Amino acid sequence: MALIVQKYGGTSVGSPERIGHVADKVADWRKKGHDVVVVVSAMSGETDRLLSLAEAVAGVPPPRELDVLLATGEQVTIALLSMALDMRGIPARSYTGSQVHIRTDSAHNKARIRKIEDKHIQADLAEGKVVVVAGFQGMDEHGNITTLGRGGSDTTAVALAAALKADECQIYTDVDGVYTTDPRVVPEARRLDRITFEEMLEMASLGSKVLQIRSVSFAGRYNVPLRVLSTFEEGPGTLITYEDETMEEALISGIAFNRDEAKLTILGVPDKPGVAHQLLGPIAEANIEVDMIVQNVAADGATTDFTFTVHRNDYKKALAILEKTASTMGAKEVSGDDKIVKISLVGVGMRSHAGIASTMFAALAKEGVNIRMISTSEIKISVVVDEKYLELGVRTLHDTFELAQPESV
Amino acid sequence: MALIVQKYGGTSVGSPERIGHVADKVADWRKKGHDVVVVVSAMSGETDRLLSLAEAVAGVPPPRELDVLLATGEQVTIALLSMALDMRGIPARSYTGSQVHIRTDSAHNKARIRKIEDKHIQADLAEGKVVVVAGFQGMDEHGNITTLGRGGSDTTAVALAAALKADECQIYTDVDGVYTTDPRVVPEARRLDRITFEEMLEMASLGSKVLQIRSVSFAGRYNVPLRVLSTFEEGPGTLITYEDETMEEALISGIAFNRDEAKLTILGVPDKPGVAHQLLGPIAEANIEVDMIVQNVAADGATTDFTFTVHRNDYKKALAILEKTASTMGAKEVSGDDKIVKISLVGVGMRSHAGIASTMFAALAKEGVNIRMISTSEIKISVVVDEKYLELGVRTLHDTFELAQPESV
Repeated sequence: MALIVQKYGGTSVGSPERIGHVADKVADWRKKGHDVVVVVSAMSGETDRLLSLAEAVAGVPPPRELDVLLATGEQVTIALLSMALDMRGIPARSYTGSQVHIRTDSAHNKARIRKIEDKHIQADLAEGKVVVVAGFQGMDEHGNITTLGRGGSDTTAVALAAALKADECQIYTDVDGVYTTDPRVVPEARRLDRITFEEMLEMASLGSKVLQIRSVSFAGRYNVPLRVLSTFEEGPGTLITYEDETMEEALISGIAFNRDEAKLTILGVPDKPGVAHQLLGPIAEANIEVDMIVQNVAADGATTDFTFTVHRNDYKKALAILEKTASTMGAKEVSGDDKIVKISLVGVGMRSHAGIASTMFAALAKEGVNIRMISTSEIKISVVVDEKYLELGVRTLHDTFELAQPESV
Repeated sequence: MALIVQKYGGTSVGSPERIGHVADKVADWRKKGHDVVVVVSAMSGETDRLLSLAEAVAGVPPPRELDVLLATGEQVTIALLSMALDMRGIPARSYTGSQVHIRTDSAHNKARIRKIEDKHIQADLAEGKVVVVAGFQGMDEHGNITTLGRGGSDTTAVALAAALKADECQIYTDVDGVYTTDPRVVPEARRLDRITFEEMLEMASLGSKVLQIRSVSFAGRYNVPLRVLSTFEEGPGTLITYEDETMEEALISGIAFNRDEAKLTILGVPDKPGVAHQLLGPIAEANIEVDMIVQNVAADGATTDFTFTVHRNDYKKALAILEKTASTMGAKEVSGDDKIVKISLVGVGMRSHAGIASTMFAALAKEGVNIRMISTSEIKISVVVDEKYLELGVRTLHDTFELAQPESV
């Protein structure tokens, strides 16, 4: 008999019927003898409804009051789910973030969890109750209601699992696990039974939006086994844990890609110390996040060429800033391209295997896919290619590394 | 400069525009230098929306979870009103019932306030902030969310006013004060500048639904000056206070009436001790509230006749119970009438003036209004008449006691 923390997102609890379905699932786990703590989000659509009320009233609302407003979304869901469980003969008890003492800092709208007092929860579990906790919200030291920002309910679930030393934290969503790549691009993409925290972090940060990065990193730090599975279909999902022996075999776990990229290049910058900071400082000050950065000595040997990528939405703003910087620095030329994408191989296995990169580049070259930028980390190789090559590139690599074959265990 | 507690009901905050209007009113009071604490209800329609969600999920929901659900209604309003005040340059701070420590007992859905901790509020007021508190809700000693039941926001406002020793508790509603009678029945009905707590209690309990009885009785007990006024029109409203010299002159403050009455009569009951209890016990056990009770010795001297009134909705149920009781007691006959209404004269002045009752009866007789039952208290005379005489009766009495004339001070 295990202690399970389950999290159901907004789509999973989007209507009274769906809340009933979630109650059925929770009841099944409970009837098998497990202790269950459930974390829920606001019903889908509810947060938007509240935001539009705020906008109608105040335009730009003060962050403290926005949190008071948004926190009602999950409070509605915890009450409804507890009612639904009660009707199924499963005793349940709901808690808001404040009630269960999810203590956060005071950064309204993007608060971070500091600690959780699990006294109430432990007592309820001991009495055989299911505990239903509002995700996404907490309370600061002054008793103010806070919210955790995007994906906050996942973080709540992982933090609760860590505090309660749960056997597993299950994230129910509308996909049935983590795939080797997006099945809409490669139909033979395969659901992974397991993936490591590190791989998942790379996959998530590269645009496979199954889990929020913050919750994965949190789970990794506290070593909480995390499982992604579907609310709507039965199945084992994908377990995210630390690397173990059985995982050694897999070279590559998956192929992530990101369509929202744009790249900027500045040519012929005088090659002096501090040049990177001079170039990227103004970009950072404008709150633009820079992803890949590549620097090369230019052909003339005295200047340097510099290329970096940003989110496509920030492209024009970044280009304008860079042009200004270029003129003050006496650079030769600024250019850019917002029709590019990033494709990445991710796998802890590549750490101990040479030649992955060259196999990757050769496979792409064979299909005529021109590589515009390369960046590597210990468990990832990313290439930037023209937008039109996205599907071809992903399919070629999925084939080349035989990701559709079941893992040999 | 005074400390004012204001309460705005669901209609007053029923849309973003209306919340803006309330913010304007609060801002006006604040700019005049007053300290203001605002209590708000859920936006009109919101409670019904939440109840229908609960019904869809669970049929009869557990009371604790129903309170968690319903409490979100006012939480939305406090956030929105605080945002609207902030946008008008008025610093404001919202509090849920739990946050401001409105401590109640644990009677979910109909909790009673035990005490209020005003520390936060006093500190905010000292900093020049408007404090916005969620009405209708509190927290029990275990940290559970509770709600106060119908009219609970009025009670919250009065309790806060009492705890803060406010100079006035203003209840904003959709009428501009308390009238001598319903203006829809008597167009020349006049708004009262003042009325006593006792009179207001009688008026409220007799169907003039401006304020909840509980909040009036609470205000009376703690001597909180209560003012009823309109959210939508300017005006002084009606002040409800303890009797003072200037009020001695008014014999009658107003005429209340109640359309929802039904009467039941049992004739020829053997006249023994305990007969009233035997008759009314089964009615009370069926949760039927009995209003007026009249008992007379019957013509034969050995039996008694017994008449009482109930809410019209309970008429059929009460009649069935009474017929059963009658047969076991050997009573002669049971009859009833659900086409009756009650009209009442209310006024503290009648305490010191004889002849009010006879003037009343004479005026009704002159118009051919037959009186079916009479009941009196120290500050009230009620008569039951046929439904068809309601308007005629009320108008006749309003004329007879010259209620359309301004009070002589």
